[in-house]
Formats: sequence, C-alpha cells, structure tokens
Amino acid sequence: MDRPRFSAGQLAERFGLRSHGDPQAAVDGVSTLAHAASHQLAFLANPRYRSQLADTHAGLVVLHAADAEAYAGNALIADDPYVAFAKIAALFESRTPHEAGIHASAVVDASAQVDPAAHIGPFVSIGAGSRVAAGAAIGPGCVIGEDCEIGEGCELVARVTLVKRVRLGKRVLIHPGAVLGADGFGLAMDAGRWIKVPQQGGVQVGDDCEIGANTTIDRGAIEDTVLEEDVRLDNQIQIGHNVRVGAHTAMAGCVAVAGSAVIGRYCLIGGAAGILGHLEICDRVMITAMSLVTNSIREPGEYSSGIPVMPSREWRKSAARLKQLDSLARQIGARDKDKT
Amino acid sequence: MDRPRFSAGQLAERFGLRSHGDPQAAVDGVSTLAHAASHQLAFLANPRYRSQLADTHAGLVVLHAADAEAYAGNALIADDPYVAFAKIAALFESRTPHEAGIHASAVVDASAQVDPAAHIGPFVSIGAGSRVAAGAAIGPGCVIGEDCEIGEGCELVARVTLVKRVRLGKRVLIHPGAVLGADGFGLAMDAGRWIKVPQQGGVQVGDDCEIGANTTIDRGAIEDTVLEEDVRLDNQIQIGHNVRVGAHTAMAGCVAVAGSAVIGRYCLIGGAAGILGHLEICDRVMITAMSLVTNSIREPGEYSSGIPVMPSREWRKSAARLKQLDSLARQIGARDKDKT
Amino acid sequence: MDRPRFSAGQLAERFGLRSHGDPQAAVDGVSTLAHAASHQLAFLANPRYRSQLADTHAGLVVLHAADAEAYAGNALIADDPYVAFAKIAALFESRTPHEAGIHASAVVDASAQVDPAAHIGPFVSIGAGSRVAAGAAIGPGCVIGEDCEIGEGCELVARVTLVKRVRLGKRVLIHPGAVLGADGFGLAMDAGRWIKVPQQGGVQVGDDCEIGANTTIDRGAIEDTVLEEDVRLDNQIQIGHNVRVGAHTAMAGCVAVAGSAVIGRYCLIGGAAGILGHLEICDRVMITAMSLVTNSIREPGEYSSGIPVMPSREWRKSAARLKQLDSLARQIGARDKDKT
Repeated sequence: MDRPRFSAGQLAERFGLRSHGDPQAAVDGVSTLAHAASHQLAFLANPRYRSQLADTHAGLVVLHAADAEAYAGNALIADDPYVAFAKIAALFESRTPHEAGIHASAVVDASAQVDPAAHIGPFVSIGAGSRVAAGAAIGPGCVIGEDCEIGEGCELVARVTLVKRVRLGKRVLIHPGAVLGADGFGLAMDAGRWIKVPQQGGVQVGDDCEIGANTTIDRGAIEDTVLEEDVRLDNQIQIGHNVRVGAHTAMAGCVAVAGSAVIGRYCLIGGAAGILGHLEICDRVMITAMSLVTNSIREPGEYSSGIPVMPSREWRKSAARLKQLDSLARQIGARDKDKT
Repeated sequence: MDRPRFSAGQLAERFGLRSHGDPQAAVDGVSTLAHAASHQLAFLANPRYRSQLADTHAGLVVLHAADAEAYAGNALIADDPYVAFAKIAALFESRTPHEAGIHASAVVDASAQVDPAAHIGPFVSIGAGSRVAAGAAIGPGCVIGEDCEIGEGCELVARVTLVKRVRLGKRVLIHPGAVLGADGFGLAMDAGRWIKVPQQGGVQVGDDCEIGANTTIDRGAIEDTVLEEDVRLDNQIQIGHNVRVGAHTAMAGCVAVAGSAVIGRYCLIGGAAGILGHLEICDRVMITAMSLVTNSIREPGEYSSGIPVMPSREWRKSAARLKQLDSLARQIGARDKDKT
Repeated sequence: MDRPRFSAGQLAERFGLRSHGDPQAAVDGVSTLAHAASHQLAFLANPRYRSQLADTHAGLVVLHAADAEAYAGNALIADDPYVAFAKIAALFESRTPHEAGIHASAVVDASAQVDPAAHIGPFVSIGAGSRVAAGAAIGPGCVIGEDCEIGEGCELVARVTLVKRVRLGKRVLIHPGAVLGADGFGLAMDAGRWIKVPQQGGVQVGDDCEIGANTTIDRGAIEDTVLEEDVRLDNQIQIGHNVRVGAHTAMAGCVAVAGSAVIGRYCLIGGAAGILGHLEICDRVMITAMSLVTNSIREPGEYSSGIPVMPSREWRKSAARLKQLDSLARQIGARDKDKT
C-alpha cells in the first residue's frame, strides 16, 4: 500500500496543533474512536461520544485540550477538533482523477465551448452556447442545456441537469439528480384556467458552493435566482425562483424555500424547515428543524417552531386542546377580570 | 436584434387593457419595476412592491387602476395585472424550437410508435408499445418505459422517467428528474417479513398539466393514479398511488399526498403540506404551507396548522407547555366548577 | 388472452384460506370492489370500503370472517385479507423479463465484473471495480460508480445512481431517480468559510430492501450508512450519512433522517416525519406523519407531533396563543397559589 503516512509531529506543525504524547506516532488513515486501529487517527468533537475515548485503539486522537487531560494516549490538541480532523482527513482522501477530454458518447452542440482540460463523461449532452472551463468535470448522464457556464474546477458528479442560463462559479460541487434552472412556479388564474407566466431568468451560483443530491433550484422569472459564494445545500432542498441565499449559509436536507425569499449570510437552516416567499431573513439566523418562517426575521439568533413527539395518546389530547386554546385563554383572562 | 416590439396601444388592444399616457410608448421586453429600462415593460401586482413604482425606469407598467392614479408614467391598466403581464411576457419569450426527428443515439423499441413530427433527444430510451404524438418533445436522457402514451405538444424537458402505463394528455409539461409511474408503496406484513403488493395500475395525466422537477407520481395499485386537466405541480411533490387530483388544482413545492387521497378542483395546496391517504378534499380548498390534513374536508375555505417560528428560547417554553395542555385545560375547567 | 386462471378452491388450498360459496368460481385477474367484473378477484381489508361489498360485481372476494357473514357472493376468508390479496395478485402480475446481456450503448469499465446472466440496459455506465451478479437488472440511464456491488436478483429500474462504495444485497429493488452513496453533508466552519469534511464511507443495503423514486441515501463519513434486510423506503426519503435502519422497518414518503441516527427493527415511520441526528429509536416504534423526533425513543409504541388542520381563521387564533402558552400556564399556577 502506497498510502501517505504522517507523524503526530508533522500534523501538529502543518495544522498548528499541539502534540501530546509521542510525536513520532504515525497514522495512514482516519477512523472513528470506536473502530480506529493503531495506525489510524480518530477525533472527539461531539461530547456525546466522550465515553468512547477510554476504549479507543486509535493511534492518534484529535481533541479539545479539556478532553486531553483525561486521555493517556497520543493526541493532537485543537481549538476546533472537527476542523482539524477535516483537514487531516483530506490528506488521506483518495480521489480518482478525472481524465481530460470528451467521452465518445457525449453530444456537444457545435456552438458550445469545452476547455480541452475539462472532463466530459459518457452520455452527457451540452447545449448551444454553453461553456465548460478548465478542470471542470461533468460526470455520466449530466444534461447541460443552452447558455450555461461551468467555471474552473467545478464537479457535476453524475445525472445533474442545468436546464438553461445557469452560471456556476469556480469549484462548485453538485451531486447526482440535482436540477438547476428549471422553470419557476409562476402561474396566473385567468377565466378559470391557469396560464403560465414565462420564466426567463437564470440561476447564478457563486464560487465554492455545494449542492446536494436531488436538490432543485429554479430559474428566476425575470431576474436570476442567486446563491452567493460558499453556500452549502444538502439533499432534496427546493429553492424557488428569484430566491437569494447569502454567502456561507448552509441548509440541511429537505428545506423548502419559496419564491423571492432573501436569506442572509452565515445562516443555518435546519432540516425540512420551510421558508415562505417574498420575505427577508437577516445574517446569522439559525432556524431549527421542521420550523416554518412566515415573516421576515430582522434579528440574528435562533428561531423554532418544530414540536418534539410525545406518545400519540397524550399528543391527541394536546392537539384537541389546541383548537380550544383561544377560548381557554379568554377564560383565564375573563377570570382575571372577575377577580379585580 | 430582431426582438419583437409592441406599443402600449397595440398591447392595450390585443389584451383588452386601458392605456394611460403615451399609446406610442413601445417596449421590446419585460423586467422588474426595480430594474426595467425605458424599452421594457414591468408590472405591479403585489402591493409589497408598490413603493418601487416611484423610482421605476420602465417604459411601460401594467398595474391596477387604483395604482395608476399615483403614477405619472406610461401605463396599461388591467383588472389582473399579473395575468396581463403573463400574456404580454409570452410575446417576448424566446423558445428554441425542437427539431422533429429521433436523435441517432436514442434507443426506440421496434414496437413503439413515434410520430415523425415529434422530437426525441439524445440518450432517450422508449419501451415496447409506447406512443409519442406529433409536436411532442422528449429531451435528453428521458426514459419512457412500456405502454406509455405522450400526447400532442407534450414536453419532457430532460431526464424525465415514465416507468410504465403512463398516459399524458396534450401539452403536458414535465420538468427534469420527475418520475411518473413508479410502483406505489404497497406492503403487507406476513410472518415478520414484508411482502410486496403488486402495483399494476398506471398514471393518467390530463391536458395542460405541468409537473415540477424531481416530483414523483406513483402508478396505481389496481386502478390508475389520476391528475385531471390543468393540474399544476411544483417541484419535489410526492403523489401516492391511486390519488386523484381535480382539474385546475395547484400545489407548491414539497407537498406529500398519501395513497388514495381524492383532492377536488381549484384547490391550492401550500408548500410542504401533508395530506394523509384515503380521505377527500372538496373543491376550492386552500391549505397553507406545512399544514397536515388528517381527515376529509367537506367545506371550501382555507385551512392551516403550520406554526410560525418564534425565538427558540420562547418556543421551548411553549413546546414544553404543549405537553401539559390537557391538564392545564382541566385545571381551568375544574376551577370553573369550583366557582359555581 | 393467455392469462392464468385460478378457482376459489385452488387459491384456498394454495394460500391456506377458507372458501365460501362456489369453490369452482374462477378468476383471471384482480380489481377493486367498486370496479371488479365477474372474472376478477377483489378484497376488503380497510373497513372504510365495507359499504362497497353490497354492490360489488367481483367474482370472488377475499375478506375477514366477520365481513363474510354479511356477504352472499363467493369469498375467500383470510386472517389478513391484504396479505392474501398480495399473494394472489402476484400470480396474475405480468412482468416483462429482462434479457441477459449488456446493451451496446452501455459503458462498462474494463475492471468491472458483470455476470453474463445480468441485464445492463441502454446508457448505463459502470465504474472501476464494480460487480453485478447474476439475475440483476440495471435499467436505462443508471450510473454505477466505482467499487459498487449489486447482488443477485437486484433491480435498478431506471436512472438510479450508485455513486461510490455502495453494496446491495440480494433482490434489492430501487426505483428511478434514487441516489445512493452521494457525499454526506459534512462541513466545518473555519475562519469564516466552510471546509468540507471528506466523506469516505459507503452504503450497505441488506437483502430484500426496496428504495423509492428520488430517495437519497448518503455514504458514511468514515464508516458505512446501513440499511439492514427488508427495509422498505418510499419515495423522496432522505437518509443522512451513517444512519442505521433496522431490519423490516418501513418509511412512508418524504421522511428526513439526519446523520448518525440509529433506527430499530420493525419501526413504521409516517410520511414527511423528521428524525434528528445522533439519536436512537428502539424496535417497534411507530411515528405518525409529519412528526419530529428530537430525542432518543427507548419504549416501543406510537409517537406523534403533527397537528391536524383547522379553518385558518381559528388556527391563527390558536397559533397566536401558542406564543403566550407559558405565561398562560403561569397565570393558572399563580392563581392556584392565590387560592391556597
């Protein structure tokens, strides 16, 4: 095995960590506390897993100073062990390089421009006027429509669709099944039938964004839908037309964002949360899982409306009382008046 | 630029609007109030954007009579400015026509019938016995299984899958990643293991329906799952087996409808709402976002159960009290009795 | 028509049922109570449909003993009519067999191993080191990445993606658009920018699992994401990295499970429910639709937090009072103190 191998001392120096124990202790891969072998590095960031420290066989553990005191093994001490682990793990990551060139089966429009240093996989189609920059990799089965732009170092893993007028910055990573640039949901009711409002905008995706599997981002109606740089979207997220997502915002799986919502920078949106349209959320807002945002949020902070489960028999009683909540509150108020 | 150009007078006559200001004022495209130039038309329908009217550079604005009074520029007055805008915008829409014919890479079963005036894109496969009518366009990477029917003027944008026994009416528009006709979720527990209930029905989709990206519509177990005409589904909607959706009903993104639910005509279902199975919703019901329908609804009107977010610290207190809601209500009731 | 045909007596013997009425009554297909003809079998399992029994034209009906008393027609009596129906319906199911062999358009890496008795459809790509066993069928447009394993008798219907290191047991059925093995959502914030935590694990799927259309199952960060045997997932479910789902557990559409959740055996998860990460749910837990699990569940039973809709005008009042719930409860408590 020609795997790279690093000693605790080397890693400490490279990433600005403090080594504890034997600086010669070397590792050639990463694992979990529970399953690491003596040639592997593990990490402890989530206190939930602290009890695993005592029994770990890891050759090296990245952890907080506070946790290091109780640990007799070799360790690297980090202010943020998860960040340190992420950087170290990247050293051991084996990624198959993409060969430059266009697969024989791909169908590329004559007016499209593909850099010779880009990779175009099998069964890819690229439409009129689209451009693919150097170092970009378009995996099997992707469909790139008309007038799209794919920046340097982008990776579309497989079966990604960019419908029309989608512009990706540099190093954008898109997972399979994602659809960018489909028509927004624009309808008007006219004499008892829907008429479709033409969707003519595009989608702009900033540098270093990541877009999850089967996530959908609609093209704008007139102007573009925008993801600023370093936005991170998990799987099965729906972004409506003309939404704007601020830089460094991350959303967990299954979030739904309705049209023309404007979301700030450094926001964290929990799984399956819903955000209505035509509202604004300021920077540094955290929304917890399955919460519903119906109005603009103008103060940073954490917001919720998801209800934790309880045994169904109890829940049914609470849910029934919910319907009476206003009259119950009035009764309390009325009695307050009685008393005065 | 050979873009079409229309004067206010021409548009007023064509769409039955009233022109205000210079009837010679001409436009060659559409934009938003905020960004329109003098050669473009904008519209004001949502009162949220009324303040933008004062500063717009649009050459022509479609708006309500009430808003026109305060506007000195050239205008078209409409009863429904959004409908009028939709119709005008369609005049300027540039859609690349689909060439008739079957792409060399497509794989079409010998028993399938493709009209010579249909378009079949690259990497499309069409199964046994399926039929594609004139003017239909099947984009790159679509998979059409056995015994499907695609009516005149349908468009499957790209990477759409019709699994089996899916019948589309005329002018049905389906966005990428949608899957119609996959097996419904039919299971029976037998001696500690699931057995699969065979799914043998199909999917019927009426004329003028639109189906969003990554939306899934399962085939019926025995009879068909049905969308009547002019149903409009946004992205990532799940429609279970044997559901029936009435004509002109529209659903926003991420709605989940369980098997055998029957939904009426002219309903509006908000984003990420959930509808349980084996129930009926009558015509003209509106369900707001993230609401849960657990019983039949027999009266038209608007229904809700989604909770708007509040600061998490406050929400946690409310959520904890929710568990006590029944006993709190009993306490109030008990004290009412004490008083009498 | 060369359809198979079975008499009531034959079916009773084959599946251990009790025949009621004429044992010679024969059927050649299945239908619903409402629409069955005299040559078809129908079933009654859900009491909701009991009223249809009186008017059915079905030649044979599978039902409970209790329902049989009121039914004059030919019947098969079963302890679980739905299970009996599922088994009988399978006799009549027509499934087109998949021809063994690799379609001329498929792109198979030289290091991949495809059994000669497997079926590989058009526009399929198979990556380095992957293996496809005998009797497996890979439908049109599927993408199999590197180092994947597809067991005997698996079926990937169409446009399924296995990204990397995905191992399927035997007889796994995967519907179109599903994505297994995409990167988990692993991020760490470092000096104001996200850094990606390498995702190096895989996905293990046990024998007899079924995975719905557009469902996504992420690869583990270090160790694998695991579905034990006979797990049944409906459409548009999201399974985060390092989740473990116990054998025989079933989830309805649109469920979201966050990373590292551990779900027991024989659980039933209702549609659009949400399950947070790093928690455990024991065996035989049922979660109803649109409920949110935020903590471990250690007792079998049914749990809920989804709120049924009410008319929006009433709901708005209840929702407003929800914000006051803690202070209302305090008022009640305070008055209790006043009284003593």
